Amino acid sequence: MSSLAPARPEPFGARLAAAMAERGQLCAGIDPHPGLLAAWGLGDDVDGLRSFSLAALEAFAPVVAAIKPQVALFERYGSAGIAVLEELLASARGAGVLTIADAKRGDIGSTMAAYAEAWLRDGSPLAADSVTLSPYLGFESLRPALDLAEATGRGVFVLGLTSNPEGASVQHVGGDRSVARGIVDAVRAENVAAAQRTDAVPGLGHTGLVIGATVGEALERLGIDLGTTAAPILAPGFGAQGATAEDLRVLFDTAWPQVLATSSRGLLAAGPDGSALRAAAERTRDALA
Amino acid sequence: MSSLAPARPEPFGARLAAAMAERGQLCAGIDPHPGLLAAWGLGDDVDGLRSFSLAALEAFAPVVAAIKPQVALFERYGSAGIAVLEELLASARGAGVLTIADAKRGDIGSTMAAYAEAWLRDGSPLAADSVTLSPYLGFESLRPALDLAEATGRGVFVLGLTSNPEGASVQHVGGDRSVARGIVDAVRAENVAAAQRTDAVPGLGHTGLVIGATVGEALERLGIDLGTTAAPILAPGFGAQGATAEDLRVLFDTAWPQVLATSSRGLLAAGPDGSALRAAAERTRDALA
Repeated sequence: MSSLAPARPEPFGARLAAAMAERGQLCAGIDPHPGLLAAWGLGDDVDGLRSFSLAALEAFAPVVAAIKPQVALFERYGSAGIAVLEELLASARGAGVLTIADAKRGDIGSTMAAYAEAWLRDGSPLAADSVTLSPYLGFESLRPALDLAEATGRGVFVLGLTSNPEGASVQHVGGDRSVARGIVDAVRAENVAAAQRTDAVPGLGHTGLVIGATVGEALERLGIDLGTTAAPILAPGFGAQGATAEDLRVLFDTAWPQVLATSSRGLLAAGPDGSALRAAAERTRDALA
Repeated sequence: MSSLAPARPEPFGARLAAAMAERGQLCAGIDPHPGLLAAWGLGDDVDGLRSFSLAALEAFAPVVAAIKPQVALFERYGSAGIAVLEELLASARGAGVLTIADAKRGDIGSTMAAYAEAWLRDGSPLAADSVTLSPYLGFESLRPALDLAEATGRGVFVLGLTSNPEGASVQHVGGDRSVARGIVDAVRAENVAAAQRTDAVPGLGHTGLVIGATVGEALERLGIDLGTTAAPILAPGFGAQGATAEDLRVLFDTAWPQVLATSSRGLLAAGPDGSALRAAAERTRDALA
C-alpha cells in the first residue's frame, strides 16, 4: 500500500469481534421508556431522558460489547431528545464502547443516502458504530448505507426474522423462498463480496442481521442458515422478553459465536443505582459465556 | 352525545377529502436534497435547510392539499435539522395546509408507541397530520400508531407497493397471497372497522397506503384492489420520477379519487423564486384535475 493511500478504517466486523472476545456477547439496550423513567424517580421529560441515558451508559460501558439506544424513545421528545441521543453517542465513543443506533430506518435512493449520512458518516452529530435498518423496500434499497458503512468502518443490522407474532405476516410469506430467507441470503452475499474485495477472511462482516431470540422453529422451517452468513447477529428478546442463555445457544447453534444478545429492561430494571446496574450487566454477560 | 363527552376531533380522512375537494390532488414534497440546496444558492447546512424548507412551504401552502417533508433530509443534520422540521410543521399548521411526515417509521410494542407519540400526539413538537410507516414487522405491529391516529384525528400511510425495482424482492413475494396484497387487505379491514365504530360512511379512512405511481401491471398481477379500501393513497413517482397525470388515472382507475399524487423535485426545480415555485405547483395540480 502506498503511503499516499488514505488510511482504511478498521472494519466494523473486526471491531465487534474484538469487543466480543474481550467483553462477551452482551449488548445493553438503553431504552428510556416512560415507565422506567418513573421507576428511577425521573421525570418524563428531556432532563429525565438525559439523566437516565448517561447513567445507563456509565454503568454498562466498561462491561458490555455494545450499547443499543432505542431511537424512538429519544425521538418522542423531538429535536431536544435527539440532541440527548447525540450526547449519548458522543459519550459512548469517549467511553470506548460500540454503539448500535436502533433506528430501523429504510428508504430508497438519495433519501436512503441521507439516512446513511445521518447515522454512518464521519462527523455526523448522530454518527454511531452501526444502525438498524428495515428492508420493506427491498434489501438493495439499503445500498447507500451498506456502502457507506463499509467505507467508514461502520456496520448495519438489517431486520431479518423477528419474534413478534405479527412479523410472520410479512417475513414468513413465500414458503421455502420466504421474505426473511431472501434477506438472510442477501446479507450473506454482501459479506462474501466484501471479504473478496478486501482479501480478508472475516469472522464477521459489516452487514449484520436482526434475528429475534425467540423465533423458535421458524429458522429451520424457513430453511434459514445463519452460520454461513458472516453476519453479526443482533438478538433481541433475551432476558426480560423470554429467552435464556441456554435457549440462545440451542437456537443459534453453529451461528452462536456471531450473536450479540440484547437485554434492555432486564438490565435497566436494576437501576437507578449504578453499581446494581453494572452488576446486572456483569451477571447477564457471564451467563452468556 | 352528552355535553360532557370530549370533543371528537375531525377524522383525518374527512380533513384530507375536504382539502382535496378544495385544492386538488397534489401533495408537494419538501425534499431539501443537497443538490437542490446548491441549485437554490443555499449552503448544505442548517441555515440552508431552514431557508429552503420555509420558502417551499410559503410557495406551496395555499395551492396544494398537503405538503410532505422528507424526514431523512432533516435528520441528516442531526438534532438541529430535526428542530428545523419542527419549525416547518408548526408553520404548516399556521398556514392551514395538511402535513405528511415522510418518516417510514416502524417498530413493535411500546417502541412503536413512542414513534406514534412523536408524530401523532397532540402537543408533540414533531406532531404532523399524518406520518408514513414501514410494515416489515407486520401490519399489526403498527397498531399503536393506527389507534393514536384515530384518537387524535390524524392519519398514517403504510408502505404497500412501491415502484423502486428492489421493492419486488419483498413486496411481490407470495404470488396471489403476496406481502403487498396482505398489507392492502389489512388496511381495508382497518378502515372498514373504523367506519363501523363511528357510524360513518367515510370516503376516506385514517389508514392510508403508499402505492408507487409507476407500479404498472403489478397491481393487477398481484390481485390488489385499491378501490374498496377507503384508504387515502399517497403516490410518489409522479412528475420528475416518471408518471404523467394520465398514467395515474389509468393506473389507479376506480381508486383515482383516493389518490394524492406527490411531486417533489419536479416542483422544487422551479425554485428558488417563490412565484415560479407556486406557478409550478398550480400547473401540476391543474394537470391532475
